[in-house]
Amino acid sequence: MKIICDRNQLFEVISNVSRAVSPKSTLAALEGILLKAHAGRLYLSGYDLDMGMSASIGAKVMEEGEIVLTAKLFVDMIRRMASESISIEADEKLLTVIKGGFTEFTILGIPAEEFPEMPSVTDTAELKIPQNMLKSMIDQTLFAIATNDSKPVHTGSLFEISDNVLTVVSVDGFRLAMRKEHLRDCEDISFVVPGKTLSEISKLLADDSDDMVDVYLSNKHIIFNVAGYSVVSRLLEGEFLDYKAAIPPSSATVITVNKREFMDSIERTSLLISDRLKSPLRIKFDEDTIKMSCSTAIGKAYDELSCRINGTGVEMGFNNRYLIDALRASDCDEVNLIINGALSPMKIVPLKDESFLFLVLPVRLKAE
Amino acid sequence: MKIICDRNQLFEVISNVSRAVSPKSTLAALEGILLKAHAGRLYLSGYDLDMGMSASIGAKVMEEGEIVLTAKLFVDMIRRMASESISIEADEKLLTVIKGGFTEFTILGIPAEEFPEMPSVTDTAELKIPQNMLKSMIDQTLFAIATNDSKPVHTGSLFEISDNVLTVVSVDGFRLAMRKEHLRDCEDISFVVPGKTLSEISKLLADDSDDMVDVYLSNKHIIFNVAGYSVVSRLLEGEFLDYKAAIPPSSATVITVNKREFMDSIERTSLLISDRLKSPLRIKFDEDTIKMSCSTAIGKAYDELSCRINGTGVEMGFNNRYLIDALRASDCDEVNLIINGALSPMKIVPLKDESFLFLVLPVRLKAE
Repeated sequence: MKIICDRNQLFEVISNVSRAVSPKSTLAALEGILLKAHAGRLYLSGYDLDMGMSASIGAKVMEEGEIVLTAKLFVDMIRRMASESISIEADEKLLTVIKGGFTEFTILGIPAEEFPEMPSVTDTAELKIPQNMLKSMIDQTLFAIATNDSKPVHTGSLFEISDNVLTVVSVDGFRLAMRKEHLRDCEDISFVVPGKTLSEISKLLADDSDDMVDVYLSNKHIIFNVAGYSVVSRLLEGEFLDYKAAIPPSSATVITVNKREFMDSIERTSLLISDRLKSPLRIKFDEDTIKMSCSTAIGKAYDELSCRINGTGVEMGFNNRYLIDALRASDCDEVNLIINGALSPMKIVPLKDESFLFLVLPVRLKAE
Repeated sequence: MKIICDRNQLFEVISNVSRAVSPKSTLAALEGILLKAHAGRLYLSGYDLDMGMSASIGAKVMEEGEIVLTAKLFVDMIRRMASESISIEADEKLLTVIKGGFTEFTILGIPAEEFPEMPSVTDTAELKIPQNMLKSMIDQTLFAIATNDSKPVHTGSLFEISDNVLTVVSVDGFRLAMRKEHLRDCEDISFVVPGKTLSEISKLLADDSDDMVDVYLSNKHIIFNVAGYSVVSRLLEGEFLDYKAAIPPSSATVITVNKREFMDSIERTSLLISDRLKSPLRIKFDEDTIKMSCSTAIGKAYDELSCRINGTGVEMGFNNRYLIDALRASDCDEVNLIINGALSPMKIVPLKDESFLFLVLPVRLKAE
């Protein structure tokens, strides 16, 4: 293989692609980026057997061929190189020379045959989602994905399309996050994408672009085509929670509160809680005031803030982290807290639409 | 004790003072900040037995007294509190209420008697140094302080005043850093200040202020009075290296090089070096070019850059980190490298004055 390419283009692509590479593996090729020079382009891929990412850049190809280079070292080299163009030449003995300006690295590559084949998706149902919409749907639900493996299907988010509405749901047994958006001309379908894939895809998505992301599906795999990158991932199998049944329909109390102020109060009152000293936050919603307190072996904390309450007052306990995570994911200044008794999950929703819904399970309080 | 004080003033002072507090100690008082309310002021101190820091703020003192509060928790509380003024009240049973706006914390304090007494410096020789000058002298020599205890006196910097010139020197067996500045009307004196103290003092010093730092000395201790803070530290005892004898007087080769370009080349060529794979940088100074190379089990790296050479060419080996540390501490665009043979230490000095001198020991190279 022998090519010359632009340094900046190469650096951008390998920085992204390297996020699909195993940081540590017994198989050297899994720690590497596959370079494939063919027909005027350099194709770059990373694949850790769960998720793969590929893209290509224009290149002057003097000799076609392929080689795998250790991702971390390759990215570091290109980051440090100052010249505008970079040449990469690999001989039959895998000796690879990376050159730019006066700088020259000679390292041993890994045979391309050792790089695992990435799954291809042929029997495809297609779906198109604008970048900014997909990004907000991923980012606002990612926090509620289960981090332990007790139910593997819950380590991903459910994507469900029904009647041209896309619903994304994450759940970990203590809280639930749901986002809804309208799409056009979609078939009904549902699938579960691993959290790690979603987290990496979110980094490729632009907040401010409504360019379409093309999604291809097979039974076991999904491909997202985002801004020149192709991300392939396995899907999670198993029965996802019946989320509709988990959301309480009725509402005895509706509290409207400033999100920032509520978060600040929670953070303050939680200062006495630590990994070693756990304790629920005791929150009393009454007379247009939220009063919260917390006691641990260190001492007592109390804080209050004003709100607007519709319905009966209630006192309940919460895990402070779960409340903070849900409020942080709420992309609006004010939220409604919908409560249906001290032991029923609390809903956090926007004031005007139904774009998101977060559910936080309360903690049973001991009598004071 | 009962006081009311300004939240912002309190936060600034305890943020600084807490850096003199032990993060972890068997004695609870050493993890705390001492609060002492007296005559319209609140005095705040931290002391880890090596270094102590104190300052005071104006306060409305309703009841004089003193208490020790755990530094980390106290700083976190005040950081999170939103109100402009804060009241702190400690009763005889050490129960302390910290209150501001609707927020209230009740925690148990630690008796002030358990807080160790800080050394006072009475038999004083006084010294005045502008803040910005002291800061640059500390920052440019700190990197060369020994981190292991094989010779404890070298875990600090030597301050030596002779003929109204202050010289600060650090040395760790592999390199040496020296800074010189002229002072006025000073007695000759020399003392060694622990690296940790210097690092904390540097954080209190402003880059852009030439306000004076007052320094008081006794046999065993030193006090720096900086911008309202009083920092007391023990001095290090023992015989400091005879640094004048360590600096080679002659110079066979003088190389003038752009500091940034030289650092970039070193960083590039060092990419194949890791904790596991150590290897010296091989640097050849010849024909107005610096050619550097490095080989490890991973491969080979080569880079070159232009320079101006006066004298005979030479090839020598270096530890890449030591070179980078010294160049980073050089506060100028171009430096002179002064070499006196492949096995003699290399001097790094400014082009025009003698304000700094860094010495880096070479590494003996194997034949290629």
